[in-house]
Amino acid sequence: MTTRLLLLFSLAATVLLSSPVLAEDVLPSWRAGAARDAILEFVEQVTDESGPHFVPPKERVATFDNDGTLWAEQPVYFQLFFTLDRVRAMAPEHPEWKTTQPFQSVLENDMDALMAGGEESLIPLLLATHTGMTTDEFSATVSDWLATAVHPVLQRPYTDLVYQPMLELLDYLRDHGFHTYITSGGGIEFMRPWVEAVYGIPPEQVIGSSLEMEYEVVDGKPVLRKLPELHFFDDKEGKPIAIQRFIGRRPIASFGNSDGDFQMLEWTAAGDGLRLAVYVHHTDADREWAYDRDSHIGRLDRGLNEAPGRGWIVVDMKRDWEVVFPFELEEK
Amino acid sequence: MTTRLLLLFSLAATVLLSSPVLAEDVLPSWRAGAARDAILEFVEQVTDESGPHFVPPKERVATFDNDGTLWAEQPVYFQLFFTLDRVRAMAPEHPEWKTTQPFQSVLENDMDALMAGGEESLIPLLLATHTGMTTDEFSATVSDWLATAVHPVLQRPYTDLVYQPMLELLDYLRDHGFHTYITSGGGIEFMRPWVEAVYGIPPEQVIGSSLEMEYEVVDGKPVLRKLPELHFFDDKEGKPIAIQRFIGRRPIASFGNSDGDFQMLEWTAAGDGLRLAVYVHHTDADREWAYDRDSHIGRLDRGLNEAPGRGWIVVDMKRDWEVVFPFELEEK
Repeated sequence: MTTRLLLLFSLAATVLLSSPVLAEDVLPSWRAGAARDAILEFVEQVTDESGPHFVPPKERVATFDNDGTLWAEQPVYFQLFFTLDRVRAMAPEHPEWKTTQPFQSVLENDMDALMAGGEESLIPLLLATHTGMTTDEFSATVSDWLATAVHPVLQRPYTDLVYQPMLELLDYLRDHGFHTYITSGGGIEFMRPWVEAVYGIPPEQVIGSSLEMEYEVVDGKPVLRKLPELHFFDDKEGKPIAIQRFIGRRPIASFGNSDGDFQMLEWTAAGDGLRLAVYVHHTDADREWAYDRDSHIGRLDRGLNEAPGRGWIVVDMKRDWEVVFPFELEEK
Repeated sequence: MTTRLLLLFSLAATVLLSSPVLAEDVLPSWRAGAARDAILEFVEQVTDESGPHFVPPKERVATFDNDGTLWAEQPVYFQLFFTLDRVRAMAPEHPEWKTTQPFQSVLENDMDALMAGGEESLIPLLLATHTGMTTDEFSATVSDWLATAVHPVLQRPYTDLVYQPMLELLDYLRDHGFHTYITSGGGIEFMRPWVEAVYGIPPEQVIGSSLEMEYEVVDGKPVLRKLPELHFFDDKEGKPIAIQRFIGRRPIASFGNSDGDFQMLEWTAAGDGLRLAVYVHHTDADREWAYDRDSHIGRLDRGLNEAPGRGWIVVDMKRDWEVVFPFELEEK
């Protein structure tokens, strides 16, 4: 290549690559304030090659809780809505459910009776709807459900109920060389069919709870069958354990919304160098829901107490988010 | 940008990106033959955007067994050598080991007595040397050991005993957009400290066996402590199960050397589209070891029987590899 050509190439590359991004252009659904500033400042510092806090791209791991952090979780976890819908859909093949609890309560739409037994009492529903089939069959069932199911309160498809500011944050972090992982208490196999399209998070970056599986060869064709036994519950202490097992690197940034995320944030924040630990606090009863210390879902108590003293960021959804759900943008 | 500049830019990009690679230049330690041809042909087909077998880069997942596939495994798994060396190093703190089996056999260098009890009898050694410490402490111990330990037969550092043709294959696949994962029966935490430097495989692409862990806060600092209980054994049926759990995509290419890899190859080969399933067959008693059906390590029996009928490739190390270990290149 001639010197002249090289020069032109370099010029052209500069033009193509260096359109500057102003701080106002990024995270547009985040209102100016301490939370947004802390995030921008952190990303700037860990990506500044000449600064003291630089982190190489391969170590830029950010982990996100899902329920209540990336999408809504009220009035109950969406995976429970899936479970109830599946019980109704499968009921014709199980006439005995009409007179067997907890199935009977589901079929009679008696949510009070159903929830009275606590989370333990829901396990038979989970096993009936999440096990026995192959992983491929389950994945297809989840996709089919999401294509038609509607949230009973907000009357929207569930995948509409993701948080616009968090979608922008995921993109922003990835644009800055971060690897964005989900670390959810929900099921890995329940998330994988849709999180790549919705969040841009590929299957290999989804960590969550899981059931045991069995490898079986049926008519010469191998399948993986989901078994009625818990393999791993990815909550509380489970989150840093799963992060270590799946990723083998400590995140430099973590995002959660409940005490179930406390240990993940603690583990992240305790690493060497600059770290970012963020709680999303549900404070907006008008646009979403307002809940924390006493909530039956996504309880945030210890986290609220300790976040300030630990230097963790608490995002106040009502104060810090200009937009909550993506559909608000269309309505504007 | 002017049209002229665009044209020059495009020209320059063409010059920079299209230096052609001849088939003879790749996989130089592989001798010409059916195995090498099958690998090259497969990669060419799945990366040909205009062809019928094109696979998008994100789905180009290749999984590799470690012991006997990427590095040697004779006369016993290297992780067992690590275990024995650790028993010797820790013995001063455990005077009772002098008269307690199986520790006594290790300290007396009586390998026959040690191995007579079968693999089960080695478990106390594994627990004594792999549990109780934090993940960070264990990782440092593995790194320290590798820095000084020498293979008792080949008198080389263990990380010298990786297979040069497989290193070239890993690079070649990654150069073609593949994501290369380890799926080993060995311990995840034993591999992660060194596989990135040696194979170019980052921690988040290491799948293997694992012990339970405990999250604990010591003097305000969280640690992950390794517990004396097996969490998952990544062998045989466990390999496709772990692949599903960690990656959530079915590999399009898999590489193994024993019947412990059979189900991984079967699961890979049974996917839709073009697939590559490869066995490395240890046939070279001069340069490495020759073993298969009757070996106590890396037994390959069913795999040898069924590979031809299933269209799986069997690499004959003696016939197909010009070089086995990287140090042979320096000696040439």
